[in-house]
Amino acid sequence: MGKIYFDNGSTSFPKAPGVGRAMVELLERGAFNINRGGYEGAYELAGRVLDTREMLAKLFHAESSRQVIFTPGITWSLNMFLNGFLREGDHVVVSGMEHNGVMRPLEQLRKTKGISYDVARTSSEGEVTAEAVEEKIGPKTRLVLVLHASNVCGTVLPIEEIGEVCKRHDVFFAVDTAQSAGTLSIDMQKANIDFLGFTGHKGLKGPQGIGGFLISPELDACVRPVILGGTGSHSDLLSQPEELPDKYESGTMNLPGIIGLHAALSYLEETGIDVIRRKKEQLTARFLDGVREIPGVRVIGKQTMEHRTAVVSLDFPEMDNAIAAFLLEQEYGIMTRVGLHCAPLAHQSLGTFPKGTVRFSFSEENTEEEISRGIEAVKRITENRDYL
Amino acid sequence: MGKIYFDNGSTSFPKAPGVGRAMVELLERGAFNINRGGYEGAYELAGRVLDTREMLAKLFHAESSRQVIFTPGITWSLNMFLNGFLREGDHVVVSGMEHNGVMRPLEQLRKTKGISYDVARTSSEGEVTAEAVEEKIGPKTRLVLVLHASNVCGTVLPIEEIGEVCKRHDVFFAVDTAQSAGTLSIDMQKANIDFLGFTGHKGLKGPQGIGGFLISPELDACVRPVILGGTGSHSDLLSQPEELPDKYESGTMNLPGIIGLHAALSYLEETGIDVIRRKKEQLTARFLDGVREIPGVRVIGKQTMEHRTAVVSLDFPEMDNAIAAFLLEQEYGIMTRVGLHCAPLAHQSLGTFPKGTVRFSFSEENTEEEISRGIEAVKRITENRDYL
Repeated sequence: MGKIYFDNGSTSFPKAPGVGRAMVELLERGAFNINRGGYEGAYELAGRVLDTREMLAKLFHAESSRQVIFTPGITWSLNMFLNGFLREGDHVVVSGMEHNGVMRPLEQLRKTKGISYDVARTSSEGEVTAEAVEEKIGPKTRLVLVLHASNVCGTVLPIEEIGEVCKRHDVFFAVDTAQSAGTLSIDMQKANIDFLGFTGHKGLKGPQGIGGFLISPELDACVRPVILGGTGSHSDLLSQPEELPDKYESGTMNLPGIIGLHAALSYLEETGIDVIRRKKEQLTARFLDGVREIPGVRVIGKQTMEHRTAVVSLDFPEMDNAIAAFLLEQEYGIMTRVGLHCAPLAHQSLGTFPKGTVRFSFSEENTEEEISRGIEAVKRITENRDYL
Repeated sequence: MGKIYFDNGSTSFPKAPGVGRAMVELLERGAFNINRGGYEGAYELAGRVLDTREMLAKLFHAESSRQVIFTPGITWSLNMFLNGFLREGDHVVVSGMEHNGVMRPLEQLRKTKGISYDVARTSSEGEVTAEAVEEKIGPKTRLVLVLHASNVCGTVLPIEEIGEVCKRHDVFFAVDTAQSAGTLSIDMQKANIDFLGFTGHKGLKGPQGIGGFLISPELDACVRPVILGGTGSHSDLLSQPEELPDKYESGTMNLPGIIGLHAALSYLEETGIDVIRRKKEQLTARFLDGVREIPGVRVIGKQTMEHRTAVVSLDFPEMDNAIAAFLLEQEYGIMTRVGLHCAPLAHQSLGTFPKGTVRFSFSEENTEEEISRGIEAVKRITENRDYL
């Protein structure tokens, strides 16, 4: 029995072809440092790092590749931004679908730095409207921060409309693209996004350990760097350089990670993210159609394909979800993720807290046959009364 | 003409055998996430991550592998620690050899958070005694932070003696091992080290993008995490878990990096760091003997092998050091690093600020023949009056 990987919302697998090879080549042929050595190999590598920035700027429609900052991942991006930006008395509006990568830093800042936040009205299907965000904007609001797509149930938020509201109220707009980058089209300029956090190892199909953010010049002017150190620039100064990307990139960079991401982005450009999105939509629609009518299973969040990504959360009301996930793997070789998905707030909004759900998250490399096996496995589990 | 890599102080090259292969295997056969999926592949990988922690705990003589925290590198480790530990009014003692990875965060904390620091008396050869550190300890001092070996001139600081002073004064002791880990023996317990920052890509011979720190339970109790988010543990809570390592490890980990480091640490264990140290000492001694007597060249820092690592900084008083480094690469294929090495304070202590030096940093994989070619190249450059 072949294993089936339905945990792409956690990390995508397989990675894009060529990711591992590019990294091993770098490590074996010349993993030199950039911005430091002045020799040829270092300059070549610096060129590929710049190229990676340019691909990301193009993907997210940024004005310049200097706005692209590399970090170890989106959790780091969000923390660096929130800590460097928020000041005492600031108010933030978030959606009711946020991940702990946003909520835990915000909670700490609330307790230690006197910031406050409000959660925009969120439906039990995970929907958040621009109006719901607008309701919470007050005189102290400096930031609206929402995820683009839910890691729990796949609901997609209307970021262009929310961006419009932010612009109207002169509030900065930040978007967490962990579950959408590489699948949905995201235009920083059209959506008025000032901060866009991304990670390399999910939909972008690169390795874990590399991610980053893009930042608008207006927002950048209000953010203090949180991680300081050697940048290979202005080495005579004890103060951090002001210019991008150096301001936010201290210490030796994750060069194997960047080069791996470069290979992944090249693959995405060749394939086209629209092609990837359509394939994921087909698979998700098929899965939804198959599981929706199974007695003993509840689809959490939106029941249809409208405004959703390739994430489906199921609840097995008559059994322990952890047992369902265990049986899926042990009996049917299907890897899912059970629990709260590091997003207790989202589960509260969806009415699945604290029980959580069994999450199926697909990649475009899954097959229709795998989806059929997944549906069949869910059906059999609910039919087997031994586990109730 | 074969190229010669003498920039191992920046990043080691070649990496340990098997590093790239281990990473590509992970990425191609199953780069699953850990602490998240409950399936078999995720558990196997979690075992290797734990194994890596145990190897690091053994290398640095920590009491428990739970004290080992992974970060993207030592600059991140230092920033996370300094920001999470220091409070208004705290005083810190540093050496005069510190890197900007320490000085830039300290300077920012001085300006924004009201901490203060003093620089211990440092000789023009880069030496800092335990007495010099003790002189600066006052009633508000909560931390002594020094590097173990200078990235500029290779001088090794007496960390066991400094640790003894810290213990006597009941002050926490932090050590930056960027230039010593994997070469010099470091015993956290013997040297009373409370915080030990390390990076994976220099002497440990792993990939860039992975590093970390080890922390004593006493110090940990005084440190607030700076990067918060999903940990796969206590997912029902909006507050960060208190237990190690989760407290400091949020978001998806750099699994390829950790697995690469695992391969590197396995190699170091097999080879023995004493063997590596002796080989590096032989090469450095030979280089020092060869360049010391060349007219037109000045060895910066210690002139002998006593208390030093495999780093040698040269000044070419009669020419621009950048031209010397350029000629070394263009005419002789020798890769060095010229400038201030992100350590202006160290160059001030050594009297080479703001001109900087040409730094040669060796690995045990350099050969005696390469060293001879290096010496010969330095000699020829100084003899060629065209460039003066």
